[in-house]
Amino acid sequence: MNILILSAGTRNKIVEYFVSTLNGTGKVIATDMSSLAPAIYEADKYYIVPKMTSPDYMDTIIDICQKEKIDGVLSLIDPELSLLAKNENLFEAIGTKVIGSAYDLCEMSLDKYQMYLWLKEHQYKCAKSYMDKMDFYKDVENGKITYPVFVKPARGSASIAISKVYDKETVELLFAHDDGLMIQEYLNGQEIGADVYIDMISGQVVSIFTKKKIKMRAGETDKAVSFKDDKLFELIKKFVSEAGYRGQIDIDIFDINGEYYISEVNPRFGGGYPHAYECGADHMNLIVHNLEGNKNECVVGKNYDDGIYMMKYNEIMIQQNR
Amino acid sequence: MNILILSAGTRNKIVEYFVSTLNGTGKVIATDMSSLAPAIYEADKYYIVPKMTSPDYMDTIIDICQKEKIDGVLSLIDPELSLLAKNENLFEAIGTKVIGSAYDLCEMSLDKYQMYLWLKEHQYKCAKSYMDKMDFYKDVENGKITYPVFVKPARGSASIAISKVYDKETVELLFAHDDGLMIQEYLNGQEIGADVYIDMISGQVVSIFTKKKIKMRAGETDKAVSFKDDKLFELIKKFVSEAGYRGQIDIDIFDINGEYYISEVNPRFGGGYPHAYECGADHMNLIVHNLEGNKNECVVGKNYDDGIYMMKYNEIMIQQNR
Repeated sequence: MNILILSAGTRNKIVEYFVSTLNGTGKVIATDMSSLAPAIYEADKYYIVPKMTSPDYMDTIIDICQKEKIDGVLSLIDPELSLLAKNENLFEAIGTKVIGSAYDLCEMSLDKYQMYLWLKEHQYKCAKSYMDKMDFYKDVENGKITYPVFVKPARGSASIAISKVYDKETVELLFAHDDGLMIQEYLNGQEIGADVYIDMISGQVVSIFTKKKIKMRAGETDKAVSFKDDKLFELIKKFVSEAGYRGQIDIDIFDINGEYYISEVNPRFGGGYPHAYECGADHMNLIVHNLEGNKNECVVGKNYDDGIYMMKYNEIMIQQNR
Repeated sequence: MNILILSAGTRNKIVEYFVSTLNGTGKVIATDMSSLAPAIYEADKYYIVPKMTSPDYMDTIIDICQKEKIDGVLSLIDPELSLLAKNENLFEAIGTKVIGSAYDLCEMSLDKYQMYLWLKEHQYKCAKSYMDKMDFYKDVENGKITYPVFVKPARGSASIAISKVYDKETVELLFAHDDGLMIQEYLNGQEIGADVYIDMISGQVVSIFTKKKIKMRAGETDKAVSFKDDKLFELIKKFVSEAGYRGQIDIDIFDINGEYYISEVNPRFGGGYPHAYECGADHMNLIVHNLEGNKNECVVGKNYDDGIYMMKYNEIMIQQNR
């Protein structure tokens, strides 16, 4: 059983957890385009590969999969999720399973406005969103939305990093400087993160870890606490099944006076996953079990304790003359 | 030999390095106002203390110093540096040395505009800075400065997080939203960090670690490489002696076509110090040696190798029911 982790970057813990789960029964191989990606040095073996956008990228990855007899491949960065999904057949032909969701779902999850339209259509609570600022101004006049709001790129990144906006003047300035911006209702509630595993064989949600995010530093969630709520578990199961995600996903949710609003989905291991793992929600094991051809049993609500706090801090890795 | 580290926060490595340097010959005690500060759990013992601005804060810290027979105390956060310096006599009276610079220097270092005035007066190359936007506009007209520029609070933090600004319209918007803003020339060069130790007995610079910062993520220096340049070492020695810093400081510098510009000083352990330590620039040892009453010999240029890369990544700590 060999696993390939693409674009490993600084996700040392994810690589480390796979190594620990395989425990010598197989190899973990990692790739990155930079030799300064510390996570590759946690793997049993690593490859420095071309940029994801390079024409020979996919050939390089397929070659590695064949040479290393890779059973399952996954990526840790958003833009690569669609690429893997699109080339699923190529991987399947050489016996490598793509651990992830289908192409259309990856694309939708990357585009905050498309995601909003889907959520609205399927009647999930979510933040009102606008691509057209005139529609937004109209709703402000009608009292349907109030400042502050978030202004952010619907996909990719903007040149100006403002997010919370308090007046029309600033909305105008931002729209004058950048294309592809979206105005989004500011949800004033408790932020929640969910690390979810959807069995790749049965298609059932088999593990959900939920945590309340505790904001201690500007913009960065570096502390969180685990909790359990059956109502939230049910909502997540319904949403994930209706959308059709597979494998590992990460969902951002807001709790506003007891009502859950779905904010964003990353169909990959999220940055906060180590909290789940350290509390017992070992999704590496579920992946390996699936790759071995076995369905996983549902352990939702049973594989971690609530009230466990996570505190992030910086670790460093040193390397000579790279 | 007992050391007290105040406001330890997420600086786990700093606490760990002191524990390792003392190696059982003394205790490292850490404090924080939050039990969710992971660094306190690396210490031999910790105290949860009131907010730094609370009226009984200083009494609490003095009590801890007496009870734990603390030889040296230091803080890891900017606003506390002046507080410690101001109360140096209180600590001295109970046999505790404040590891840090004098009050006026701490205050100047916190205020980017005061620092600029000092650097200009003492003829160091640095970024042109303006508190008055009309002076700035005049210099733009005269061709003395061009966009983009940085707009940032001279001290403390602003409500809007824009920094790089490309036009007058945006300068006007930012100044309308926030007080205490400063316009600063954008230095387009190689960013450098220097971790410097100034002997607390002799007043001489005894160790300098310099690194080139390699930016890989928006706004965050998470990779760097060590280097040595005698010209830079001499500039740092001259600047630090002229200003009169003591103990550990961190300097931000720009290399623009071979000329060094001084940008900012933090008179404390900087966030990037672990790179220096892991390369051999052990300043914990210099501190302990000073606290034992011994002068340190100058090891500038001799205590680390160049070409050593540092790569940052996230580590987490888990705690139940705090």
